[in-house]
This record gives sequence, C-alpha cells and structure tokens, in this order.
Amino acid sequence: MSASKPSGKVLLAITGFNPQQWMQLLSARRNVVLEPDGPADPSIDYAVVWKQRPRILEKLPNLKAIFSVGAGVDHLLTDPGLPQVPIVRVVADNLTQYMTEYVTWRVLDHHRQGAFYRTQQARRTWYEPPQPPASEVSVGIMGLGNLGRASAKALLALGFKVNGWSRTQQEMDGVTCYAGASGLTPFLNATDILVVLLPYTPATHGIIDYSVLKRLRRDNGLGGAFLINAGRGRLQKEADILRALEDGTLKEASLDVFEQEPLPKTSPLWDHPRVFVTPHAAATSDPAHLVGPMLDQMDAHDRGEPLRNLVDRDAGY
Amino acid sequence: MSASKPSGKVLLAITGFNPQQWMQLLSARRNVVLEPDGPADPSIDYAVVWKQRPRILEKLPNLKAIFSVGAGVDHLLTDPGLPQVPIVRVVADNLTQYMTEYVTWRVLDHHRQGAFYRTQQARRTWYEPPQPPASEVSVGIMGLGNLGRASAKALLALGFKVNGWSRTQQEMDGVTCYAGASGLTPFLNATDILVVLLPYTPATHGIIDYSVLKRLRRDNGLGGAFLINAGRGRLQKEADILRALEDGTLKEASLDVFEQEPLPKTSPLWDHPRVFVTPHAAATSDPAHLVGPMLDQMDAHDRGEPLRNLVDRDAGY
Repeated sequence: MSASKPSGKVLLAITGFNPQQWMQLLSARRNVVLEPDGPADPSIDYAVVWKQRPRILEKLPNLKAIFSVGAGVDHLLTDPGLPQVPIVRVVADNLTQYMTEYVTWRVLDHHRQGAFYRTQQARRTWYEPPQPPASEVSVGIMGLGNLGRASAKALLALGFKVNGWSRTQQEMDGVTCYAGASGLTPFLNATDILVVLLPYTPATHGIIDYSVLKRLRRDNGLGGAFLINAGRGRLQKEADILRALEDGTLKEASLDVFEQEPLPKTSPLWDHPRVFVTPHAAATSDPAHLVGPMLDQMDAHDRGEPLRNLVDRDAGY
Repeated sequence: MSASKPSGKVLLAITGFNPQQWMQLLSARRNVVLEPDGPADPSIDYAVVWKQRPRILEKLPNLKAIFSVGAGVDHLLTDPGLPQVPIVRVVADNLTQYMTEYVTWRVLDHHRQGAFYRTQQARRTWYEPPQPPASEVSVGIMGLGNLGRASAKALLALGFKVNGWSRTQQEMDGVTCYAGASGLTPFLNATDILVVLLPYTPATHGIIDYSVLKRLRRDNGLGGAFLINAGRGRLQKEADILRALEDGTLKEASLDVFEQEPLPKTSPLWDHPRVFVTPHAAATSDPAHLVGPMLDQMDAHDRGEPLRNLVDRDAGY
C-alpha cells in the first residue's frame, strides 16, 4: 500500500484528544504529519482538524481542503488564520446512527417518565401515573440537517408527532416544518419536548434562553415541557435553563453539551434532580468509521471530482 | 343511542381496578351490569373480564363470547368454571404502541449506559466510556406475537440486530428467528439484550431462570448481558435474576412484571442498583382505546360475522 501513497501529506491538527488512532488509520493510505515543516510547508495538501491551533493552516501554500472531525464546524471557523479553501463536514452513517439513538433514548426517557419512576422505586412505591401515548406528544426539533432529519424519522416511526424548525424553510414527510424568526413562536407553542440540533453560529449563540423555554407547551399530558440539547453548549444559556427548571417553565432537561466543557465541577446542573448530564457523548466521532470516507473524498478530489458536504462559510455551518 | 341498544347485556367482571370508565364507555352502546341477576342470568350475552371472580361465568346460558381486557389471558384461564365459549384477546394499536415505546426505551437505556451515566453524574465526573453503535448489539425477543413483532420492527429501524424466539417457527424480515427447545440455546448465545414478551402458560412458567440467563452473550461491547421482562411476572424466577446480577451473569435488568404484584415492599429488587422497576405499566389497557374495538366485535358477531383475535385455549394464549 505505502508504495502507492500520494506525495502530498495530510496535516492532522487535533487538540483536546489523542490523535493516535486517527494517525494510524489515515496513515494506511496517506503520509500524515502532526506539525507542518515550518508555517509554509509546501508538502501538505489536506488538513484533518479539531480545534486546531490558531493560524497553523494560514500559510500552507498547497492546502486543497480542510476536513472537520465533527459534524459541527464552529470549532474551526473561529481561527483568524483560516485559509480560503473548501471545508468538508464529516457526514458518516455512524455519527447519524449514534445521534439518532441518543435523541430517541432521551425523548423516550422523558416521555415515559423515567425520572419519576426512578424516584418512586427508591421509595418502594407501586403506582402507575397517567401516561399519554407517543401519538399525543409533540417533539420539536430545532435544526433539520442530516442529524435532525434522522432523529425526526425515528421519532415518527415510534408514533410521536414531530415539528421541525430551521433557519430556512425545509420540507419533510410527516413533519410540520416552521422556519425563521416568524416561525419560532408557533413552533415552540406546538412543542412538548424540544430537541436542539442546531449548528453553532453567531446567529444561534445563546438561542436557547428563558424566552424560548417559556413558549414551549406545558399544558400537556406529560405535565410540563422538556429540553434536550445535543447540538452545541453555547446554543444554551444555562442560567436560564436553571431558572426555568426552578419556576416550572421546564420540567426536565437532558444536556449533552455545555457552555464550558468539561462541565465545571461547580455547576449546579450536576446535581439537579431533573437534569440528566452526559459528557458530550451523544455522537462519538469514531475514527474507525470516519477516516475511510475522508480518505475517499481526498482521492476523489485528487482525481478532479467535486468535494461533497461542503461547509457554507457565510452561513457558518 | 340508547333506543338502539341490543337487548342482551354485557357483564363487566373486573377485579383489581375500578370498572367505572369501562362501564361508562361500554354503556354508550350496550346495557352493562357488574353482577349477573343470579348465576344463570339468561340476559347476558357477552362478558368483559379481568381476573373475574371464579365461576361467575360458569352457568350463564346465553353467553356468546368473553373479551379479555389485557393482551395476556392467563388471568382468566385459571377459572375452573370457565365456559366453552370463544375468548377474544384485546388487540389494540394503543396497547402495541405503549409496549413498543417501553421496549425501545428500556433497550436504549441499557444500550446507551443510562445507569452508568446517572451514577457518574452524581460524582460530577466527565468521562465517556466506549460505546458500540446499535448495529453491533443484538436484541433477542422471546415471543413473536403482535407485541414482539412491533418491538422488533422499531428496534430494527434504530439499527439493532434482532433475534426472535417463539414456540413454533416464525418468519419476519430482518429478524433471525429461532424456535422451540432446540432453538433456545443458539438464540440466547446470540443475544446481548433479552426482551421477554411471552404469554404465560404452564409451559412458560418460570422459563426465565438462571440457566437461561447464563446462556446470554456477555463478551460484547456493552460489557455484559441484560434482561427486560414486560410479559408476565411468573415467567421469571426472581431469585435466579438476583443471583445472576450478583455473580455478573447479568449486568442489568428492567422489570415491569413480578412473581407477585404489587411487588412486595420486602423484595430486594426495589433497591438493587442495577434493576429498574416499573409497576406493570409498560402497556396500559386504556379503556378509551380498547372499548370501541370490543363493541365493534360484539356488533359484528351479532350480525353473524366471525370473531377475530381468538385465544387458543389448548396453547393457553
């Protein structure tokens, strides 16, 4: 295999986790380096990045494209030295699969009153509270990209009513779609369980605030409104979520992402009895499933074929 | 409406819960009584029952059919004075819907390591354990009736591998089907998460014992085997389940049904950290959804049409 590797190199610019498995898998078909040979290294033609060191890509003269290791790209767009080359978002069945599992799991745990039953079990109480079927519960998904659509499909199959909200108008069979600023209030008013899968951009910074939570439907068979955020932590205002939990605006929340990660030990979210915390684990970027499609795209691009799943830098996602 | 009610009466023979809503809904289209006018009351033509008082149906001369309020019929077959008339099992979309929600919820909570994350959250620890995707996890469903098939379909849609086991050989797209005594070991050996939806009969009494749990696959990406019983409590040997949990044969269990219900306050299942208890609440028999189909069947039978969803008394379900 190594005899046939292209002459250009892949720069693996990852911070925050161990690059070893990525290195190993990419190296099967490309020459890979962790640092360029000087800021203007001409031998690098592709970069695979997660929260890269700022300006590390800025002066690479032959860089053809940047591949993001996660579905979101906010982690790389903040780099002031980001060169004007195409950015490819990772789209992997595996990532979509994990996210669909997580969203379905959290929706069902709120819908089927998991927190109530766990508390009741600790008291050795045998009591069955009223339980609406999924067909009487509306899940509202903010963000109708690959992940939002896959989650919507799974929830529809389980019998839930599903609403969708996105920046621009979308269509999806079985989903009531709302869009833009004017669509937000009717979307929230028709939603019992809110699922946040939006990209993080300047326009969505802190969008999940008290005023949004206040507009959710609480007069429903589940006795309140629910929030699930598996998008990005900076989409939410955690002080507002806590306020909403305290005053009954929100009944429960499942949070996989946080304003600051890891979630600080001092955060009151950790021991709130109606908050479920996971450590940004909803959808793991598993290199065993992601590296192959990345390498395939590099090969295709070298053959002159267009790149797929490109990021719109103006929209920010 | 009342002017058009048939002359025959419906006997509503329910113990263990309040018959009021059933009475109200059935009364919209039939005359309903809670007691026959003497043991040989000739005016009763149908009975709607749940754990009826033994022999209450024995001598009714004009009884045409018995309708069970639940999907299982073991509660009525033990009556020594059960007359030889057709028994109709309730089959309602609503009941199937609830059971599918419950099974999917519990499978996902075990698969996505809910118990682990709840314990970790209490310790304010930010750690992501390895997580296989659903496509690498096998759910084995014992019992491939309406409920088992609907659950299998939902789990397949989420990407799980699904095995099925039943008394007689069944077929279902996407499901690896096993049958009978000879099929049990290969079925269990290929299963990480066992879901029990069998009918309760003399042949299935205590079938979920230590030897069954021992044959489940533990050498898997989830670090152990799991049991979910939403069928009947007397299918399981609770002492065996506790033993299997203690010695690592079983990692966790979700139990909705128990040998004795309500589960006695003294049961060690209540506060076992790896057991999730619900009070026979997986699939509620909601009269608002069940009474209509029952009344429709009575009307159809009066017109000379055949009854559907009949119980095979020899098979016991």
